[in-house]
Order: sequence, then structure tokens, then C-alpha cells
Amino acid sequence: MPEDLRLRVQAVAEKSGFVPNVFRALARRPAELRAFMDYHDALMERPESGQAGLSKAERELIVVATSGANHCTYCVVAHGAILRVRAKDPELADRVSSNPYSVELDRRQRAIVDLALLLATDSAALTEAELDEARVAGLTDEEIWDVGAITALFAMSNRLAHLTALRPNPEFFLMGRLPR
Amino acid sequence: MPEDLRLRVQAVAEKSGFVPNVFRALARRPAELRAFMDYHDALMERPESGQAGLSKAERELIVVATSGANHCTYCVVAHGAILRVRAKDPELADRVSSNPYSVELDRRQRAIVDLALLLATDSAALTEAELDEARVAGLTDEEIWDVGAITALFAMSNRLAHLTALRPNPEFFLMGRLPR
Amino acid sequence: MPEDLRLRVQAVAEKSGFVPNVFRALARRPAELRAFMDYHDALMERPESGQAGLSKAERELIVVATSGANHCTYCVVAHGAILRVRAKDPELADRVSSNPYSVELDRRQRAIVDLALLLATDSAALTEAELDEARVAGLTDEEIWDVGAITALFAMSNRLAHLTALRPNPEFFLMGRLPR
Amino acid sequence: MPEDLRLRVQAVAEKSGFVPNVFRALARRPAELRAFMDYHDALMERPESGQAGLSKAERELIVVATSGANHCTYCVVAHGAILRVRAKDPELADRVSSNPYSVELDRRQRAIVDLALLLATDSAALTEAELDEARVAGLTDEEIWDVGAITALFAMSNRLAHLTALRPNPEFFLMGRLPR
Amino acid sequence: MPEDLRLRVQAVAEKSGFVPNVFRALARRPAELRAFMDYHDALMERPESGQAGLSKAERELIVVATSGANHCTYCVVAHGAILRVRAKDPELADRVSSNPYSVELDRRQRAIVDLALLLATDSAALTEAELDEARVAGLTDEEIWDVGAITALFAMSNRLAHLTALRPNPEFFLMGRLPR
Amino acid sequence: MPEDLRLRVQAVAEKSGFVPNVFRALARRPAELRAFMDYHDALMERPESGQAGLSKAERELIVVATSGANHCTYCVVAHGAILRVRAKDPELADRVSSNPYSVELDRRQRAIVDLALLLATDSAALTEAELDEARVAGLTDEEIWDVGAITALFAMSNRLAHLTALRPNPEFFLMGRLPR
Repeated sequence: MPEDLRLRVQAVAEKSGFVPNVFRALARRPAELRAFMDYHDALMERPESGQAGLSKAERELIVVATSGANHCTYCVVAHGAILRVRAKDPELADRVSSNPYSVELDRRQRAIVDLALLLATDSAALTEAELDEARVAGLTDEEIWDVGAITALFAMSNRLAHLTALRPNPEFFLMGRLPR
Repeated sequence: MPEDLRLRVQAVAEKSGFVPNVFRALARRPAELRAFMDYHDALMERPESGQAGLSKAERELIVVATSGANHCTYCVVAHGAILRVRAKDPELADRVSSNPYSVELDRRQRAIVDLALLLATDSAALTEAELDEARVAGLTDEEIWDVGAITALFAMSNRLAHLTALRPNPEFFLMGRLPR
Repeated sequence: MPEDLRLRVQAVAEKSGFVPNVFRALARRPAELRAFMDYHDALMERPESGQAGLSKAERELIVVATSGANHCTYCVVAHGAILRVRAKDPELADRVSSNPYSVELDRRQRAIVDLALLLATDSAALTEAELDEARVAGLTDEEIWDVGAITALFAMSNRLAHLTALRPNPEFFLMGRLPR
Repeated sequence: MPEDLRLRVQAVAEKSGFVPNVFRALARRPAELRAFMDYHDALMERPESGQAGLSKAERELIVVATSGANHCTYCVVAHGAILRVRAKDPELADRVSSNPYSVELDRRQRAIVDLALLLATDSAALTEAELDEARVAGLTDEEIWDVGAITALFAMSNRLAHLTALRPNPEFFLMGRLPR
Repeated sequence: MPEDLRLRVQAVAEKSGFVPNVFRALARRPAELRAFMDYHDALMERPESGQAGLSKAERELIVVATSGANHCTYCVVAHGAILRVRAKDPELADRVSSNPYSVELDRRQRAIVDLALLLATDSAALTEAELDEARVAGLTDEEIWDVGAITALFAMSNRLAHLTALRPNPEFFLMGRLPR
Repeated sequence: MPEDLRLRVQAVAEKSGFVPNVFRALARRPAELRAFMDYHDALMERPESGQAGLSKAERELIVVATSGANHCTYCVVAHGAILRVRAKDPELADRVSSNPYSVELDRRQRAIVDLALLLATDSAALTEAELDEARVAGLTDEEIWDVGAITALFAMSNRLAHLTALRPNPEFFLMGRLPR
């Protein structure tokens, strides 16, 4: 692995305590892994702004909901773990991934998940009407972009995980489930 | 709750340490709950026979796979817990429920899950050819009946859970995840 | 067949004039057949109450609509016969089973069939909104339970019929078609 | 109705004993009705040839199978009646229309229905491989054309019936059910 | 080819500059080709009436939208060419055929395409409610008939094209793309 | 637009003669656009190697086939243009995008498109069996990665195009259609 990637992955590993398997799988093609990490970090690691924009927990909610709809085990388990941590909720990830379609959510979360699911599973059906519904539920245009772009990124990511038969690290299954 | 049902539920509660929410939800209709428990126990609690027949872990595998395909959160979480315990495997339930279609399984398990998924999602397409495939993979006709009947029972159960917006007890989420 | 089941099936046979094939098929597993009959009778044979609750014809309407959607020949033909008798209508069963989605029904029947079809074919999509629509159409919560539970029971029953390649008795095809 | 159409419909009525509702519905547009009848008769009323070619019963089998898949009540009921008469079988039509996917048929009939269902429901997926399977089952290229063209004609006809909310004449429901 | 058909095809060829492949493919069965041409001309070549009724461009819009949904290459390319010519728009056909579901259209066109897509892909779901929506958008009952009948005709035509693996003439690909 | 992006886009514009609309749409988020372009170029602009690996035309074939399946007008039209140029074939793009499922292709192309379509539309169903089929058709593991990664990238790209209602530049519609 080229030095810049090795350092970035090491930073993740120091934070998590292990190297998530996705990095090993994608390391076969360094240029692609680099672009993937850049895209991921631009969307998922961008600092939360004080006033507005999706919270980090909301971003993970999108990943878990759409990865559940796509039956992507790696992303459900790995990002389910991160969602438990970020939302400080030991149940939300399993409830969202097993049934994103009717899991009980508040209105803002529901609007986020509905838009994400439509883009994930039938994006050709998206019209201005659905964007307007999201706006009525209080999402700004920047937030709508985030919902859409995160859904799109994980449409890619879910398919790469399926292509490589990626299995979640054992650590993810338990992370965020125990009270601290 | 009539006395006979109260005693049966109490027996379950003593074993699990809590009353699974499904019993509270269905108690509204005692005659239906009684028939449901009878059917469930006939299929899921029948003692394992020495030589042949589905193991208890295999029966739970069917429940988790088809409830995953049906997006039934209650059954995925509750029977996922039981599968972890019975299969002594902390990862299998999450891997099966998130993607029953291509989760890595041995040949016998794959035959069980393939037949169950077909019956769960498109039973009108079942022909003698699919039963023959299951036989070639080593399933006996009694085992095929069990696969089919368990799938059918949870086709019912998943729909009752959705009808009643049933939520899993908090205890299920963690059960079977920690080494003993 | 154990004595209690033999007597119950005999009672049905005396009423119909023949033993419906479903009893022969399920007799292979007496405990399961007993539970099945208990569940069935609790939902389908409960006396009509004077004021409210689903009529027996409405219960059969649910069976025929969802069995049509599930392409279950046995249930379409056998319960189609019962629907013709109970609704005193020689055409309704064929019209409902061939196209439950847009068959012309009155508002109450339409609400019953719409809820049943959603639960039968995509139960994960059911939310409080659909239950509210059923309430607005005049269904009580007990009636909604009946719609849901009957749909769930026949989700099971349709799959058992497909598993056993169950064929309708010849008598069912003509029953209720001729003016008395 | 122009004279030529009036005479043709009268001929049908004399044979059946009533005017099938489809003629009334399409009479609104005489030129279209004329072309529809021409197409229909070229495919469905062409005399059976001694040696080869689809029998008239086989042609109705295609109509009933694909109309069942398309949930077209008019065609299921009307052509179900004709199939009962032509196949001299009081049960086949109900068995085929309720579940064309796995109804028990002999090999030639199964090949006919499989090809018809693929063209009816997902014609873009048809490749030379499926035509070869039909040939291996013994269908000639002329017979394959008939299967395809009849399926295509009723793809049109089913949609016209749905557009016009066409209801079957009461006579069709009973026709061919009673022993002569 | 019988003389009457030869003359009709020749007339088309003189107008287009070539013989569209569909005529060669269907010539195998003259009676069917004759009926097909009669039906086609009754719907597609009927003169535009001054006040009302679908314009010829609107009729081609229906063909291109539904053939796109049905993935029928021949009809997409051939009628895409005619749509470009009739609508005097070099982009509309590609935009409609690649995504009929959310292509930007004016309200009348959107109502036409929505009704056509429903009939093309799920006609059993059509109820009076959808016809009322079309009426609210300004379509007359004669126009609704045209939308439905053209959709039905091309449900047939698309399937015949798939059956015969029909390929578009090379001339269609470029027709109507260059400014005159 | 930051300087580095401005220069990259300018380089594309000099080659094509215009700025493809995708760059304008994504410029709203420079970090995301940069990662998108990096990913795109790593997969799509990597020089063809002499012996092995997907040709540039084959890479565009994947984009057009999966964008057709996803009904993404922008990618169908823009990459259809590039496919026409790279494959030196004025018809292939329209034939592939309108019906990727049964378009006539040689065996290697068919294996590429089949794998791409499965990943694009139902990636959870991918198992080792499908990868083995691709290997039997002659694809190397590096080529399989390319097929999968390009499909994944355009799963993302198609969704971004739908999110932003991206319209193709007028130039794309005609590009590669005229003989040089």
C-alpha cells in the first residue's frame, strides 16, 4: 500500500482499534482506494456545522437504511456499529437495517430515509415532487444534496462489498451495544 | 390471559428471563395465541432426533433468513438472538438476516435457505424441480416439510408482527453476542 | 389420524359432502394439523356478532383476494366456492381472485381488500398511515385485526398448499355456481 | 355498428348464445374492432391442421395462462370458458389462470406456457436460448410464432379490457363446467 | 407478399426511403400483417382533428415511452425517429425512452405518459381514480381511449419485435437528428 | 471552481469541444467533484494495456448497459456518445441502452454485460457461481474487478444525475453518429 494510504488507514485503525476489512479489499487498486476515501471523508467526516446540515448520526442513518435495502452485510454491520456509537442508541441500527421502510422515526429522520430509499432502489422515479416533500419536512437543499450523495456513495460501496464478498470484522458486531 | 396461557408464557419467561413482546401482543385474542403457540412448539420445540431431522439451530436459521427477506424486525432480532445461542455463533444471525441470498453457508444450509426463500417470497413458483434439488443436497422429505412449514409459520408470524408494529424486547439485541 | 382430528374432519365432511384435500395433506403431522384447525376456526368460524365485526362472507373475501395475489390454486378454488355460497354471488370469487387489485367493490370491501393485499404482498411497508385509512373507511380495530390475522393465516396456508402441490377437490369447482 | 361488423358479431352470438361484452366495448371504434377481429381470427380461429400446429385448446391455454399472469378478469373468465369447452376439462382453466407458473402440465404444454409467460411478463429477456428450449421440447418454428403472436395479441387485449373495465358476461362463468 | 400488402408497404417505403424491417418480419403471416397494419393505421395515421384529439407527435410520444419501459429496441429506435420528425425536437425521443418515468414534460404530456406507463407495465392496477386524474389534466374520454389503445397496440408490437429479434433499419438511428 | 478542477475540466472541454454538464452540476461541492473525477479517471481513462484488460470501448459498454438499466438519461446519452466513438459503431449504444438484457453481443461482451447488470440491479444475489461464469467466458480477475468497479461507480453516478435532474449537453446526442 502506498505510504499516504498506509498512514490514512493507520489513523482509522488507531481510532477503531483495528483495520476495517474494506481497506484491505480495496488496497488492490490504490488509486481507486484513494478516491474512495476522499469521497467518503468529504461526505461522512465533514465536521458538523453548528446550525444546520446533517448530523454525523443522520449520515450513518442513511448508510444503514440504504445498505439494509441493498442487503449489504458489510455496510450494515460496520456502519450499524458506527450508528450505535454516534446516535448513542444500541437498537436503532438493527431496527433500521432490518426494515428501513416502516421503522418508527421522527419526521425529519423519516424524510431523510424516504428520500434515500427512493434514490437507492428506484432513482429513475425521483421527480421534483419528492424533493419538495423533503423540503416541506424541513430539509435544506444542502441537506438534500447530502442525503443524495451519501446514498449514491453507498450504492457504489455496497456493490464493491458484494463484488469482493467482503466480510465485516468481528469487532463491528458488538461495538456500541454495551452501556459504557 | 387465561390460566393455561399464563402458565405457558411464564415458562418461557423463566427460561429467557423476560416475557417476549409477541405474547403480550397476541394475548388480545387468547384462542389465536393458543393455536399460534401450539403450531410454533410443534415445529420449533420438537426435540431433535438423534439421526436425522433439522437441528434446532437449522430451524432458527430458516426463521432468520425468511424474516430477513420479509424485513420483519421483531423476528430478525428475537430469533437472531436464539440462533446465536443455538448455533453458538455470534455473527451468523446478522450475516443471514442482512443478506440471506448470498451469505456463505455450507451446502446443506444453502439448500435449506434456498428452499425457504423461494417459499417465503414466491411460493407459486415452486415446482417438483426445486424439491428435487433439495433432495439432491441431502434433505429428506421430512426435513423438506419442516423447511416449508417453518417458512409458512413465519410468513404468518412476520405479518402479525408488522400488523401490530411489534418491537423486540431490549434483551434480545445483546443475547448470544458475548462469549460465556 | 388421531381420534379428535378424525371427528373434526368428519364433521366438516358431513357439512360439505366430502373431505377437503387440505386435511389429507396436513394429516401427516397431527400436531400441526390440530393447531392449524384451531387457528382457522378461531378466525373463520367465529360466529358473526350482531352489530359489528367482519361477516363470514367478508372473511372469505380476504382469503380469496390474498390467495389470488399469491397464486394459490387450492385456496382460490376451495375458498372461492365458500365465498360464492356465503356471499350468495356466483361471480364475485372469480372476479376477486383474478384481479383483486382493481375489482369493483364497495368502499368497506375495498378497504378490507387493500389492507389485506398490502399485508399479503409487502407487509414491511405497512405503517400507521394505512391503518388510519382503514379506520377512515369505517373499520374498527377489531376488524382490522381480523383482516390482518386472516391474511397472515392464509400467507401460511397458501405456502403449505404450494409445498404439498395441493389440488382442489373436484366438488369445489362447481359449488355455489348454480341457482338453488 | 357498421353492417360487416354487425354480421360478424351476430355470427359469434349465434354460436355462443349471447354477444360477448368485448364487442360492445370495442364497437366505439369500428376500424379498431375490425382489425382486432381480423387479428384474433387469424390466430385463434385458423383451422387446426392435421399433423402439426397448435391445437385450438392449446391456443386457449396460452390466453388463459397469460391473462392470469396479467390479472385480466374478462379474458380469464371468457377464454377460461372456451378452454373448458375445447379441452373438455372442467378444471384446467381455473388451475392455469390461478397459477400458470407451476400448474402441472405435460412437457409440451409446459414449454408453451413457459414461453408465453416470459413474453407476457418480461419480453425483453427473451433470447435465442429460450427459443431453443422450446424447440427441444418439440415446438416447431411455426408453433413458436403462434405462441408468441397469441401472447402478443392478448397483451393488447388484456390492456383494452383493463382500460374499459370490461366485465365478463354472466354466461361465461358456468360454460363448460357441467357434464354434457 | 400478397399484392395488397406489397402496395401498402411500397407506399411506406416511398415516404421513408426504405422498407422498415417490421414489414419483412411480419410478412411471414400475411393475414396477421394485414390486421396489424389496419390496427396501426387506425390509431397512428388517423388525421389530426382541428380542435381536439391527440396530435400525431403525442401518439408517437406514447409509443416511445412505453417501448422504452418495455426495452423494445426496434420500437424505441424506429418510433424515436418518427417522434423526432413529428415533434421537431432532436432530443425528446432519447430523453423519453431512456427514462419515461421522470422525463420533464408539460402537464398534458405527463398525464398521457403516466397513464400509458401504468397500462403498459401494470394494467391490472388501473382504476377509475387514474382515469379521473387524466381527465383532471384535461384529457377527453376519446383521448384517453387513444392513449390506452396505442399503449395496448404497442404492448403487442413490442412483444412481436422481441419474438422476432427485430433490428431497426440503420436509417432510423439518424433520422430527425440533423437540422434541416 | 478551485484552480485544479478548473484546469481539469478545461482539458476535457478542449478535447470534447464543450463542458459536459456533469461538471457544472457537481462543482457545487469541489471536494466531491475532485474525488469523483479521480475515481472516474482511475477506471475509465487508465491506458489500455497491450495484452489484456478491458478495452476503453468495453468500459463504455458497461456504463451504457447499466445506465440503461437504471434509466439514467444523462449517462445513456453522454456515454452512449463516447461508446459510439470508441467502438466506431453508430448503433451499438442505442441497442445496448434500450435493451441491455438481450442485445446481441459476442460471448465476451455478453459475459461483461451480464455481470454488470447483476451488480447494478441485484448485487445481493451475486455469488461465486456468477464470478465463475465470467471466468469461464474468459475474463481475468482484474477484468472482473473492472466490470464490478465501473458498475459501482456508475451506480453512484446515475443516482447523482437523477438527484440533480442532470440533462445531457445537446452535443452528445449527435456525436459519433455521422460517418467521418
